[in-house]
Amino acid sequence: MAKTMDCIQIDSDLLGTYVEQLAGYGAVGDTGVTRPVYSPAWREAQSQVESWCQEAGLDVRRDAVGNVWGKLRGADGGPAIVSGSHIDTQTPGGRYDGSLGVIAAIVAARALMALGKPRRTLEVVSLAEEEGSRFPAANMWGTRGVTGTIAPDEPYKLEAPTGETVADAMEEVGLDPELIPTARRTDIDTFIEMHIEQGPVLEDAGVPVGIVNAITGVRHYVVDVVGRTDHAGARPMTSRLDALAAAAAMTSGVIGIALEMGPPAVTTVGRISAEPNLPAAVPGRVTFTVDSRHPDPAARDRLYASQEKLIAEVAEERGLAVRWNVTIDVPPCRSDPALVALLEETARRCGIATVTMHSGAGHDTQRMASIAKVAMIFVQSLGGRSHTPEEFTALEHSTVGTELLASALYRLVY
Amino acid sequence: MAKTMDCIQIDSDLLGTYVEQLAGYGAVGDTGVTRPVYSPAWREAQSQVESWCQEAGLDVRRDAVGNVWGKLRGADGGPAIVSGSHIDTQTPGGRYDGSLGVIAAIVAARALMALGKPRRTLEVVSLAEEEGSRFPAANMWGTRGVTGTIAPDEPYKLEAPTGETVADAMEEVGLDPELIPTARRTDIDTFIEMHIEQGPVLEDAGVPVGIVNAITGVRHYVVDVVGRTDHAGARPMTSRLDALAAAAAMTSGVIGIALEMGPPAVTTVGRISAEPNLPAAVPGRVTFTVDSRHPDPAARDRLYASQEKLIAEVAEERGLAVRWNVTIDVPPCRSDPALVALLEETARRCGIATVTMHSGAGHDTQRMASIAKVAMIFVQSLGGRSHTPEEFTALEHSTVGTELLASALYRLVY
Repeated sequence: MAKTMDCIQIDSDLLGTYVEQLAGYGAVGDTGVTRPVYSPAWREAQSQVESWCQEAGLDVRRDAVGNVWGKLRGADGGPAIVSGSHIDTQTPGGRYDGSLGVIAAIVAARALMALGKPRRTLEVVSLAEEEGSRFPAANMWGTRGVTGTIAPDEPYKLEAPTGETVADAMEEVGLDPELIPTARRTDIDTFIEMHIEQGPVLEDAGVPVGIVNAITGVRHYVVDVVGRTDHAGARPMTSRLDALAAAAAMTSGVIGIALEMGPPAVTTVGRISAEPNLPAAVPGRVTFTVDSRHPDPAARDRLYASQEKLIAEVAEERGLAVRWNVTIDVPPCRSDPALVALLEETARRCGIATVTMHSGAGHDTQRMASIAKVAMIFVQSLGGRSHTPEEFTALEHSTVGTELLASALYRLVY
Repeated sequence: MAKTMDCIQIDSDLLGTYVEQLAGYGAVGDTGVTRPVYSPAWREAQSQVESWCQEAGLDVRRDAVGNVWGKLRGADGGPAIVSGSHIDTQTPGGRYDGSLGVIAAIVAARALMALGKPRRTLEVVSLAEEEGSRFPAANMWGTRGVTGTIAPDEPYKLEAPTGETVADAMEEVGLDPELIPTARRTDIDTFIEMHIEQGPVLEDAGVPVGIVNAITGVRHYVVDVVGRTDHAGARPMTSRLDALAAAAAMTSGVIGIALEMGPPAVTTVGRISAEPNLPAAVPGRVTFTVDSRHPDPAARDRLYASQEKLIAEVAEERGLAVRWNVTIDVPPCRSDPALVALLEETARRCGIATVTMHSGAGHDTQRMASIAKVAMIFVQSLGGRSHTPEEFTALEHSTVGTELLASALYRLVY
């Protein structure tokens, strides 16, 4: 199975077959997948993953939040080397986001097991939840269980927009919310997650695989601008308190600040709503979100300070009230430098072209970083698209990524 | 009842009482009114108006679209001099928009009848519908009936958001849609509508009453901007096709053009929606409305041409697709110059301070202009507010406006 003792070849056909098969659980249209956590489709998908792990000869167990673990015990015991990703999807999402990393870990483990019993313990994990697509406030539920950061009341408190709680949904699939603390792991040494890039960097560079040296920091603001509703015809321009005119200036302003700061700063106004939202009424109130990211802690602080200043100034100049809430504030996560170096060196030895890059998206890895050394492998996404049925990653690129994963795991566990 | 033969005094207490009483039909909270066309509250309100007309000694009839007419036949016969406004409201609206003009016409007619039989025929009208608050595409239904511009299939085609047709609603209040053509009038000489200003011009000028020399032209655009949805973290700024960033620049641009052109140009972006409307997704599509008004036909053309050019340029610079539909395009309506002069002269003689101004809002009057000489009297609105339960017009101002109306009608019919 191995090319050389250092460069592991994986079963590309099996990888492709698994991707096809897993996409059947929650399939929507030709290529879409809707598989929110604890749904019937999710339950079937995790059972499929368990079967694959068993077929590979791994010891399989499901933990209290629904993560599936497959273990190959090492001769020396000790903390485990783990690879995997999440099994849940957007509604609808595609076939690759999360799923590919779960499948890659199983296929890599299969290739490694053919080499005999390893020195260190190797585990693959199919994480229960990352997207927040069913319970928005419970995103990264799987890794939060593993890292022991779920408060006792959270399963009963966090709700879907339907009013259903996480606890309700867990109980429906036979999981006991009271047992969540038992999912905590303190014996993981290293976590490597393979994931689709979800952006265009690798495609633009013409390279199949990226090595992630940091996950960007992200902050979400919800900005609330209050002016005054007026008749769109009868109120002269100069005496308006037009909340949407202000929000437009704020939107252009915060995006302009990110553009001026340059890559890797990114800022997005993704959601907006106006009141009363009528064609012939000056909007009296506008609420919009700002998603602003930078992987460097100091640059991130400068980015946010400039953007907050701009928003406050636009409101003041126009005589409107503004306030904002920070709803998400995740600091940047640096990968373990030695692990990045190991991945880079392995790629070089095995003749795999890579780009070392940051991740602009959040991942389970940033949660795992609180208990383990972490790094990620990115695989090229067609057109940089994700969170849509159109997301696509070519099997040849997935194969190269999985071979880099397997080869790096080989160096860590054998 | 008359101050002099030229300046008619009206019964201010009665005016105030009628305003209070009519506000009871469809009352919402302390000062709100929800009285959409053909609703039970509307039906009761029109019956109340019929009673008031009868009490005043007018010949009352209801036409096929539900307009209530009260007639004082003149000795010479011939085309009628008509005053009135609409009885329906926003949901909720206030007590004054439309209602005040109906009441003013009745109270003015009462004052005039005390002077004996007029030379010319005087009519008051309580128009069925102006707001479009129940059937958005059926706004100005009352005057469209009077002017004969309702197509035979319209009552069956135009729907409320609930799916109910205008014909359904008419039948519920005992009106036969097949008879709509009988509502057409070809014997109206002059129409004068008193209405609240709905803007701050009179309040800012400290003047109770305005004389309207034109109703502004208005165009509504629905602009559809199509870019590409991307991950808010993974897609670098420079390769985005951000539809909301573009829509923000377009919003600032079209508003900026109206500001630069100066009064009386006004432009409002009132409604906006983004897709997928998620905090962490670059919006792939944004739809927004532009309401743009100018009372001068040539200036209006220049305004629209500049705004369309700007929208197209922003899209092109950013590589996005844009298209727009014009959903409303109402040309400016000039009042009859002789009628405006008569109102101005009457005000001067009767010591009533007025401002001659344009209307930034649309009114039944602009429809009536197709069959009659028209003008409007505006009465000061507190804070320029309307289409809200908070709209308020002081009785002293309403009284002055109604006296100007009565005095002008006197000069026309006696």
